[in-house]
Amino acid sequence: MVKLKAKIIDLRVGKRMVLLHEEDAKELGALAHDWVKIIFGAQATSAFVDTTKSYLKQGEIGILRDVSTEIQIEEGAEVLVSPAKPPESIRFIHKKMDGSSLTKAEYTAIMQDVVDHKLSDVQIAAFLLAEEFHGLTMDETEYLTSAMVDTGTVIEFNSPCFDKHSIGGVPGNKVSLLIVPIVAATNLLIPKTSSRAITSASGTADTMEVLANVEFDAAELKEIALKTSGAIAWGGKLGVAPADDLLIRVEHPLNIDPFGQMLASILSKKLSVGADHVVIDIPVGTETKVSTLEEARKVAQSFVELSERFHMNLQCGITYGGQPVGHMVGPALEAREALAALEGAGPTSLIEKSTALAGILLEIGFAAQSGQGKDLAKEIIASGKALKKMREIIDAQGGNPKIRPSDIPVGTHHVAINAPCDGYVTNVSNAAITAIARASGAPREKGAGVALRWKRGCKVKKNDVLLEIYAERSSKLNEAHNLALTMNPVTVEGMLLHKVPEFA
Amino acid sequence: MVKLKAKIIDLRVGKRMVLLHEEDAKELGALAHDWVKIIFGAQATSAFVDTTKSYLKQGEIGILRDVSTEIQIEEGAEVLVSPAKPPESIRFIHKKMDGSSLTKAEYTAIMQDVVDHKLSDVQIAAFLLAEEFHGLTMDETEYLTSAMVDTGTVIEFNSPCFDKHSIGGVPGNKVSLLIVPIVAATNLLIPKTSSRAITSASGTADTMEVLANVEFDAAELKEIALKTSGAIAWGGKLGVAPADDLLIRVEHPLNIDPFGQMLASILSKKLSVGADHVVIDIPVGTETKVSTLEEARKVAQSFVELSERFHMNLQCGITYGGQPVGHMVGPALEAREALAALEGAGPTSLIEKSTALAGILLEIGFAAQSGQGKDLAKEIIASGKALKKMREIIDAQGGNPKIRPSDIPVGTHHVAINAPCDGYVTNVSNAAITAIARASGAPREKGAGVALRWKRGCKVKKNDVLLEIYAERSSKLNEAHNLALTMNPVTVEGMLLHKVPEFA
Repeated sequence: MVKLKAKIIDLRVGKRMVLLHEEDAKELGALAHDWVKIIFGAQATSAFVDTTKSYLKQGEIGILRDVSTEIQIEEGAEVLVSPAKPPESIRFIHKKMDGSSLTKAEYTAIMQDVVDHKLSDVQIAAFLLAEEFHGLTMDETEYLTSAMVDTGTVIEFNSPCFDKHSIGGVPGNKVSLLIVPIVAATNLLIPKTSSRAITSASGTADTMEVLANVEFDAAELKEIALKTSGAIAWGGKLGVAPADDLLIRVEHPLNIDPFGQMLASILSKKLSVGADHVVIDIPVGTETKVSTLEEARKVAQSFVELSERFHMNLQCGITYGGQPVGHMVGPALEAREALAALEGAGPTSLIEKSTALAGILLEIGFAAQSGQGKDLAKEIIASGKALKKMREIIDAQGGNPKIRPSDIPVGTHHVAINAPCDGYVTNVSNAAITAIARASGAPREKGAGVALRWKRGCKVKKNDVLLEIYAERSSKLNEAHNLALTMNPVTVEGMLLHKVPEFA
Repeated sequence: MVKLKAKIIDLRVGKRMVLLHEEDAKELGALAHDWVKIIFGAQATSAFVDTTKSYLKQGEIGILRDVSTEIQIEEGAEVLVSPAKPPESIRFIHKKMDGSSLTKAEYTAIMQDVVDHKLSDVQIAAFLLAEEFHGLTMDETEYLTSAMVDTGTVIEFNSPCFDKHSIGGVPGNKVSLLIVPIVAATNLLIPKTSSRAITSASGTADTMEVLANVEFDAAELKEIALKTSGAIAWGGKLGVAPADDLLIRVEHPLNIDPFGQMLASILSKKLSVGADHVVIDIPVGTETKVSTLEEARKVAQSFVELSERFHMNLQCGITYGGQPVGHMVGPALEAREALAALEGAGPTSLIEKSTALAGILLEIGFAAQSGQGKDLAKEIIASGKALKKMREIIDAQGGNPKIRPSDIPVGTHHVAINAPCDGYVTNVSNAAITAIARASGAPREKGAGVALRWKRGCKVKKNDVLLEIYAERSSKLNEAHNLALTMNPVTVEGMLLHKVPEFA
């Protein structure tokens, strides 16, 4: 045990970390990432160690705000520091690294320590990589799902509750803005919680935010949903399955998305908001998460198997993900397109996909007979009921219920990309469209994004506009334009594919 | 690209890291661990991102000293920040994570970025875990070894150069203090570089430091070795294979030691100091790194195979590691015991192990005929030549050449642990002895440690002293004493092992 003088580091990094001078760390026998106990007066807490040679003098301990506020340590206070046993969950992580399956209690311990910021990023990385390398059994996936639910807030609606989730990867996927009002129009309860974009150009929450508020706590969400049967809110303020964001933060630099973790992440969020009737959208395409139909079937089967363990009524819709859904990518552009579709003027791909997925929910909710869900969904749009319901939802969420698509402002800076030759559109690249929309400012700048004029298979003439880029700032427009010129977002091929020799 | 105001964080953590406000990070499209370019005037550098909500205001960038000194950014300066491509080596790490083998160029790129602090701990963890899960081919181990050598200092001696290394795990392993003077006494060149203890109670460098200086740069080490043929120095000041320490820092919290990485780590250090005649000590025991003879043979075979690729003359000695070597554990106690052994009064286990390993070096250096190395080594001790050589080395390294074992001070606080009954010593626990010696203050407090009175198989009487703990401070003595009373470092069993029923 050593006595050290506290130096408060006014830094909050979401980790229970203290900084020791290398010599003091040696004295304690503690290495970086080891765990120490910190005693201040009658209070004690634990944190893991990082070491420094230059920032601290010997005899000082750097205490980050995450730790100092917990036991009210002040600058200059004397604290006692001793080596401590690391969180037990580290042992379970090592067990998983060795290839063993973990028990329910072990998954709960790991998720609890993730949520309590007791694990360093390196230890979380080890857990995720062990999942990636060794895989999870269905039992383990169930335990992990439960653990993610149990370490967060759970919202109860006390009635059957519907939801939809897409595993992602397709730009322009604004289908929730159609599905929620369609389903709610039949008085089925669908308080949908959505994410903001992490790597895409617009998450459902970003798009809905163009039309109304999306940040609600659990009580507010309940109130809205009970009034209108539907809601489209951002999930981040609800505190459901908080482990997920902390794990995603480490998955990103590792560029991994362990399969069992993905299943648990999605179902834990649905379970936490009380959803028991769920449709999962699995887009298939070379640039999405699932590239073949065969793989999609396996993914779907795993979702169904896991959901049965939680007595959920879950079905999967395997959808075409080879190019963007509809024509618009970016928050305001997508909100315009969704609203236009509810008004009866939507592009085929958007209407077909939205009504197919909504139809599944209508069928499992017995609002439609088997095989007739999609037709009913289309009818609900055609009759104007979906639009009316959407206006109610927008109103309940504090937006302007009378808004028309043309009222939604988009970026005033824009530029067109033209077809280089006569021919057919043979490819629209999801990755390129997303990158260009993000470069133009989406999702932060709501008016930024990409409007596609043509999709796969369309015949175009030289100099036809292939797509337009919108931006709120000219500097962003330039960035996006330059990217579009190098990335080949829309491929047009004439009948003559190659000349041989090429340079004759 | 965004313009931000620099806030210098006077913190050096050995990582190229900057801190962004979460909103600015979103604006940039950068997540934690993503890579950004920082432009200040005519200079530019790159770093990875961590994000904060509270430490910075929007529009500020926190720049750690590791980065700020490189392009001389001052507090309040305006810098331009843009997303940047991550180091290419991250792609190679992902390739290894996917189970592919890497090329020589890929290993070199990874090690270079480790040394340049361009990888975050999470990325280094991913690399190490990929090695652990997928293993390394011998080709890969060779490439990794070369990469670790090439990214550090290389010392050339221009003559055959001898060395010894233990893969570790056995307390009291002070054999190098005998092997170096034995070998040097035959005029073979053995400028041994050693490590300090990381998790043990005393590294060879810690023990030698009781007798002489051990911190030398390459030129000084050369001068000493050319004068006396032998040296026992700390390797840390030489800059050889610097990637190793940076990798160990991450291996520790992961509790892994990937096999190929271990081979590369050891051989890269030997290659970097020009050692071309090497003996590797592989202790076998339940508490060492290798628990069976069969496993030890495999480890030895891998060392030999790898060494052949570098045209080294390497042999392995598989040694008994079931209990400490000799009786003393802790820097001063071990230095005493080693010196006593050179004076002809050493314990059998220490003499046998030292002369066996020294004998291998004498044979591969043609100083002894095949099969006669050990006898020659014993003769060199018996004749006093090894002691004389050790005194020369101590002198050359700035110590007192006339020092006697009893001149070496040990901790003035001590306490004995007594036998609980008549019986036989059936076990001496390496892990417990190490833990007790560290609790007493070793290796930082040179006089601290454990002196064993009896070893396995010895007959003891009730209340005989089993071991003594030495400490420089009474608080440390108490800690170590308490640990000894709970950890059962020496097991004494009478002939009656169990009573049935136990509580009659």
